Amino acid sequence: MHPPLKTLFFNPLRRHHIPLRLLHHRHLHPQPPPPPPTIEYPLTHPIYTIWAANTSLGKTLVSAGLAIAFLTSTSTVDNIHKKFVYLKPIQTGFPDDSDSRFVYRKFSKFFLRNRPEFSIFASNHVLNASGPAARALLGECWESGGFGSGKVGNFGGGFESLGWYEERKLEGVENDGTKGAGACSELICKTVYGWREPISPHLAAEREGAALEDSELLEMLKRGIQNGVGEDGNKNVGAMCVIETAGGVASPGPSGTLQCDLYRPFRLPAILVGDGRLGGISGTISAYESLKLRGYDVVAVVFEDHGLVNEVPLSCYLQNGIPVFLLPPVPQDMSNDLTEWFEKSQIVFSSLKEIMLSAFHGRMQKLHDMRKRARDIFWWPFTQHEIVPIENITVIDSRCGEKFAVHKAGSYDLITQQFDACASWWTQGPDINLQIELARTVGYTTARYGHVMFPENVYEPVLECAELLLEGVGKGWASRIYFSDNGSTAVEIALKMAFRKFLLDHGIHFDQLKANPAERYIDLKVLALKGSYHGDTLGAMEAQAPSPYTGLYQQPWYSGRGLFLDPPTVSLCDGIWKLQLPEKIQAENVKKEDFFFNLRDKIFQRSRDASTFASIYSSYILRELSHADSKTFTHIGALIIEPVIQGAAGMEMVDPLFQRILVKECQSRKIPVIFDEVFTGFWRLGAESAAKLLCCQPDISCFAKLMTGGIVPLAATLASDAVFEAFLGDSKLKALLHGHSYSAHAIGCSAAVKSIKWFKNSKTNINLVPGADSLRELWNTDLVHQISSNPAVQRVVTIGTLCALELRAEGCNAGYASLYASSLLKKLNEDGIYMRPLGNVLYLMCGPCTSPVICSQVLVKLIRRLEEFSQVKNLEASQL
Amino acid sequence: MHPPLKTLFFNPLRRHHIPLRLLHHRHLHPQPPPPPPTIEYPLTHPIYTIWAANTSLGKTLVSAGLAIAFLTSTSTVDNIHKKFVYLKPIQTGFPDDSDSRFVYRKFSKFFLRNRPEFSIFASNHVLNASGPAARALLGECWESGGFGSGKVGNFGGGFESLGWYEERKLEGVENDGTKGAGACSELICKTVYGWREPISPHLAAEREGAALEDSELLEMLKRGIQNGVGEDGNKNVGAMCVIETAGGVASPGPSGTLQCDLYRPFRLPAILVGDGRLGGISGTISAYESLKLRGYDVVAVVFEDHGLVNEVPLSCYLQNGIPVFLLPPVPQDMSNDLTEWFEKSQIVFSSLKEIMLSAFHGRMQKLHDMRKRARDIFWWPFTQHEIVPIENITVIDSRCGEKFAVHKAGSYDLITQQFDACASWWTQGPDINLQIELARTVGYTTARYGHVMFPENVYEPVLECAELLLEGVGKGWASRIYFSDNGSTAVEIALKMAFRKFLLDHGIHFDQLKANPAERYIDLKVLALKGSYHGDTLGAMEAQAPSPYTGLYQQPWYSGRGLFLDPPTVSLCDGIWKLQLPEKIQAENVKKEDFFFNLRDKIFQRSRDASTFASIYSSYILRELSHADSKTFTHIGALIIEPVIQGAAGMEMVDPLFQRILVKECQSRKIPVIFDEVFTGFWRLGAESAAKLLCCQPDISCFAKLMTGGIVPLAATLASDAVFEAFLGDSKLKALLHGHSYSAHAIGCSAAVKSIKWFKNSKTNINLVPGADSLRELWNTDLVHQISSNPAVQRVVTIGTLCALELRAEGCNAGYASLYASSLLKKLNEDGIYMRPLGNVLYLMCGPCTSPVICSQVLVKLIRRLEEFSQVKNLEASQL
Repeated sequence: MHPPLKTLFFNPLRRHHIPLRLLHHRHLHPQPPPPPPTIEYPLTHPIYTIWAANTSLGKTLVSAGLAIAFLTSTSTVDNIHKKFVYLKPIQTGFPDDSDSRFVYRKFSKFFLRNRPEFSIFASNHVLNASGPAARALLGECWESGGFGSGKVGNFGGGFESLGWYEERKLEGVENDGTKGAGACSELICKTVYGWREPISPHLAAEREGAALEDSELLEMLKRGIQNGVGEDGNKNVGAMCVIETAGGVASPGPSGTLQCDLYRPFRLPAILVGDGRLGGISGTISAYESLKLRGYDVVAVVFEDHGLVNEVPLSCYLQNGIPVFLLPPVPQDMSNDLTEWFEKSQIVFSSLKEIMLSAFHGRMQKLHDMRKRARDIFWWPFTQHEIVPIENITVIDSRCGEKFAVHKAGSYDLITQQFDACASWWTQGPDINLQIELARTVGYTTARYGHVMFPENVYEPVLECAELLLEGVGKGWASRIYFSDNGSTAVEIALKMAFRKFLLDHGIHFDQLKANPAERYIDLKVLALKGSYHGDTLGAMEAQAPSPYTGLYQQPWYSGRGLFLDPPTVSLCDGIWKLQLPEKIQAENVKKEDFFFNLRDKIFQRSRDASTFASIYSSYILRELSHADSKTFTHIGALIIEPVIQGAAGMEMVDPLFQRILVKECQSRKIPVIFDEVFTGFWRLGAESAAKLLCCQPDISCFAKLMTGGIVPLAATLASDAVFEAFLGDSKLKALLHGHSYSAHAIGCSAAVKSIKWFKNSKTNINLVPGADSLRELWNTDLVHQISSNPAVQRVVTIGTLCALELRAEGCNAGYASLYASSLLKKLNEDGIYMRPLGNVLYLMCGPCTSPVICSQVLVKLIRRLEEFSQVKNLEASQL
Repeated sequence: MHPPLKTLFFNPLRRHHIPLRLLHHRHLHPQPPPPPPTIEYPLTHPIYTIWAANTSLGKTLVSAGLAIAFLTSTSTVDNIHKKFVYLKPIQTGFPDDSDSRFVYRKFSKFFLRNRPEFSIFASNHVLNASGPAARALLGECWESGGFGSGKVGNFGGGFESLGWYEERKLEGVENDGTKGAGACSELICKTVYGWREPISPHLAAEREGAALEDSELLEMLKRGIQNGVGEDGNKNVGAMCVIETAGGVASPGPSGTLQCDLYRPFRLPAILVGDGRLGGISGTISAYESLKLRGYDVVAVVFEDHGLVNEVPLSCYLQNGIPVFLLPPVPQDMSNDLTEWFEKSQIVFSSLKEIMLSAFHGRMQKLHDMRKRARDIFWWPFTQHEIVPIENITVIDSRCGEKFAVHKAGSYDLITQQFDACASWWTQGPDINLQIELARTVGYTTARYGHVMFPENVYEPVLECAELLLEGVGKGWASRIYFSDNGSTAVEIALKMAFRKFLLDHGIHFDQLKANPAERYIDLKVLALKGSYHGDTLGAMEAQAPSPYTGLYQQPWYSGRGLFLDPPTVSLCDGIWKLQLPEKIQAENVKKEDFFFNLRDKIFQRSRDASTFASIYSSYILRELSHADSKTFTHIGALIIEPVIQGAAGMEMVDPLFQRILVKECQSRKIPVIFDEVFTGFWRLGAESAAKLLCCQPDISCFAKLMTGGIVPLAATLASDAVFEAFLGDSKLKALLHGHSYSAHAIGCSAAVKSIKWFKNSKTNINLVPGADSLRELWNTDLVHQISSNPAVQRVVTIGTLCALELRAEGCNAGYASLYASSLLKKLNEDGIYMRPLGNVLYLMCGPCTSPVICSQVLVKLIRRLEEFSQVKNLEASQL
């Protein structure tokens, strides 16, 4: 539907006005902006963001009204020191327009007119301003006779860090001398950044030469929230904080990032100031939807009454019970100081405040109850419920790109971010930009298609997805796509494909079988590697060697229908890559130095095909195959491997040379080759397909996990034309009679289209090496070498988005059920790293477009904790 | 997060102003509005909808500008009769404000001033108006001296159907007498409905007593599009149609339905008129997102330049290449007739028009190419590719509730709706309202969570989903939820659970097994019914009896690990329900009338537990079980059944009494009972769970398909506490070591939460029988009886959302691979019914909240075609 970009049309006069910062933001600039800081905020009190459907709808009136309602309500005042913090992160038109000063002044006026029975300390601060804004502020102070004060630096270009403030004690009518003596409530108003011109912040920032990175703004806001209230040890404090945005929900911030995107890492609950005018229903609903599309919870909608009954359709739309508040008409007379309006509005603001408090308490209650409710009714996979203490359950409030936002209970509760080192179990790819793009994509696809069945149908997302798969991971060999729901089903389908192809290629025909019942008994086996894993459904399990997963108590029907070879592996030890052979492979005539590689890339070089190892591997494989051949009725009907990395086995890197030779030997015997790329596919190992790393092509290949960017299940089994043809015929009974209702579901396919394109476009994926079709090194080599030299570490494997390490352990400390790493994991969790180990194997996993800055931050923490761990283990050993 | 509804707060003065139509629309009214008509529109020429981010942004200027650009461009004028149709479906403030007259007049003025070398016939029509609007129109004509004319009826309350029009021939400068003689281009402007007051249409409709159902409006619009251009046989016509909406994208229409929802059944490509003012970036982006959230394709954004460079952040946001157009500032002087402005803007409108034409041609091209591209690369499940002619491939452009919008090529191409009688392969539930709700839900969930891994974690959607399952389909017996991806995996998990429980209950302990290897060989089998189907992965397949799906060529590893019983079935024949026993069950001492039931409900009555059949069934079951018991090492470790309906077997209804007795016998022997409710669950059979129909409870139960409302894969295996406890212990190795990366993925869980609640709330599901926890009869009983009496029909099964029939057929005409129904299906497809049969079994399937009006429409068509089919078959038989 979309015309090509060249048709983009502008008023030619405007062509050159694109601000640099915007270009920057939209990934057209070589230097990506720094990743956002780790977000954290206290749950000691309600913190809200005030959004609006448009500019000038009265966000500041609402903020001031809330301040009044919160601080002057008499019902709960006794002995409570109350604090209301108002933050205006972005203020343009400053200082002529200053919303924090407006709140400060209106509140003061209201207070002094109504004089309650207590006093309040009120202040207004300006933390930073552009040069022009700072100069104007100084001028204003001068003129106004020094109402405020502060240190103002030199007003050159760039940004001025100010300490400007104004403050006063508002004395109430204290009819009882004791009241309020010990606890003076506070109003704290802050403008965090100000620009002079009354225009959109991104324009003001550019024109005034005072740019601001999103990360800086978030960091300042984080501090503002923390300093404002969080660290107050006084338990008897009632506090509330509101953050007022600038303009509408999707108005650009100073860097050009839309504000709804900019503030997303906090995901604070929202109050939406709607529009009561003609057309306001539409604007309010659309703004609401933009907030929802970024994962915000809107707690209430409030707007000025223009007599158009807009609240009725709005309430109907918000049928889930979000309350709608109507404010009395605001006097248009500019001389009106609004004091009466605020008085008239207090009943509304008071109710709004109550809703905000009750929503906050509701959220707190829920966060606290969730662990128990979960423990009582969930049946988690791969989890022994008896050994999960309730405090180990993680309450995940949201995710933002690579990070979880989790609830932590402690001396005070908080929401804090953790790096999801499991990449949510090997599926995740999106940074925050892609995540929000995907939200739009799946929203659109649901609205357009819901789900439509696949057989004999075509619809845009599935067609585009299939074509992208053939041009990408299937390039050069695949010609057909079979969709299913997950890796396990994709593998079962692959096995059915391979076996049919094998039977036909080896002359075991359908009709022949019918004719000759004696020939019918055929024991088809797969050739596979020990330690490989292909999913948990029975067919996929049959292709793995016996393991804890396959016992009678786990799967009584498992029999292990495979010939399982022992693979040689490679890993990084003490800063050098080392090849390790299994017992069954004897290395004669090999020099010791041939077992070592100083660079990982050397392990993958095609030149090794001519090495001694090549013939050693060949003869081992041939020996095993000929042994199998000698059995009556038994055929090796397929080879199935996880290329390069065997994930569930403990992130074992198999020698790619071995796998390449294995593929060659099988293909020469017409044994169909299946690559299980469920884990390795889509840049997990630094290339779009791990087959590319092996330098050979399969006949069938399975993909899932990262294919949709990691947001919904979808799998694809790719096949060559020759495989497809084995299912052609005149009868439906010869077709592949396997399918799932959601085969090629539109939502999954469109998420895949978006993600596949995103990952392989250097404009959206900063990690792509231009021209090389591979990711740059995401895990800093020096840091990784450092880890591999830690005495507690047995081996390290790092490739693409994966950095894994095995802790040196013996006996029951080793293996899948080991709890050996618990103490280390606990520390890392405190550092903000969420991990779930494979026994004594730990791993960090990021997305294909994760900033290496984030990776290094995580590595540094890991190194520090590993050193501590190693010292403790050393000590323990010495004490034995 | 959401406070309870009672906290909803309004200005008390407004409390009683909710217009009736709105209440109506939001399902608070007992009589639901009629379902929308079947939508269809020609693809002979571009048809666009013009939307705006707010009111008064210049939609009509854009429409007029496009009319001028399209009709007066000289490049393609020769010998082409061009037609521009402008439709204004909803006009308030009429006739003072009349956008269609504005377009008509501005065009005329522009034309006469610029006088091109051809003539144009221009007209402006008003089709319907409220009483006050019609009266005012008459007054206006009177005053203006009869510029227009028409028949105006009596102006009482309600709505007036007018034939008012004005027209003129605009003469160009014809310097060549031949030009334009045969082909006079046309401008047709139409106001479809007008109201007097210049307020939101839903208010005007209410205040003027001129209400309008959405279905009426859509029907009129459909005719407007068709009559306007579609039927013009002249191939040499260049046409374009634009439909201008009222207010902003989400402004309410006359019934209160938001316009973006109201027009959704057409899903026409969109032009968005944005906002160039301060705050306009936000409003434009939010409006764009509201359109996307309804599945619209926006082809271009256009807005008036206010000098704020809003186009830059907008273009950055629309990075996918949607062009942004800037219009010159519109003169504010009211006396300005805008002629010069239109001249100055022509370069912009001309480009915009070209984009619209090229997007249209791009879409046409794609629709045409899709079949071939699909045929070349897809591998459809359950499909023999050799017997699918390319014209049989359905191009699905979108879905809207129960209907597909498909592309049809013919004498001219069109988009037309088809009733999705497959309920997209048994998964679908949403009506259009739920579909759009789900779009918002999944958009929000993606933005909030993306995907987060499940083990040892908790997040809101999964907790809420699990609790809803336990309170709903698991009520009274289930206490744990195990999530997976689809029905097949849910069944494999259920089998693992059941077997473990069986082994423990029968004293075959873990440690015992280790100690005594001789005891180790155990052949665990399932007890199942012939014809049952539980999925296509190997484990699930082992639980089904041998069939075409299980042959060596399909699944060489299948061995059929079950004891498969022959079930008695019931069906409707000649208007009466009839019980049919398999050969193995001998019915002695049963009266012939006991085999017949005049009402379906009687088959389900508990009183049958005391009938002769009960003991007949019991003895058959005991006989089979004791036979199995006698085999060494063989144990029946689980019972698995599809309750009531065996779907894949051809929609066979098993006698519920038989299944109830089977469950009782197994439970008394401590054989765990699994209900496979993947197909039957969530109202498919009229109750939330089919177990309720059987009046007995399983130990384990599997759900999928409809659980998410039918939009993304998600499955749940429910288990009793006793089953869960069989996996507790001190070691991880005793846990259930089965899992999928997307277990309990947030998007699926939140879609499930939304859908489960929607289906069981009588405010959103009009089909719920209040207090009865069941759906009313969706398929009209008389019509169904009529079908069951057709001589071509063998049997009918109708229950809940399902209405199935088996065609009388023999030999290769019967069974799964049969193509017997092809001719009938072709006819039904022409009638707008999309079906995919199970061999000679056809079925219609709707959603739990589908209007019975739709069901009856479909049944009537089916009856007519069945009669034709039956006559043809009769004739064929007589000719043999």
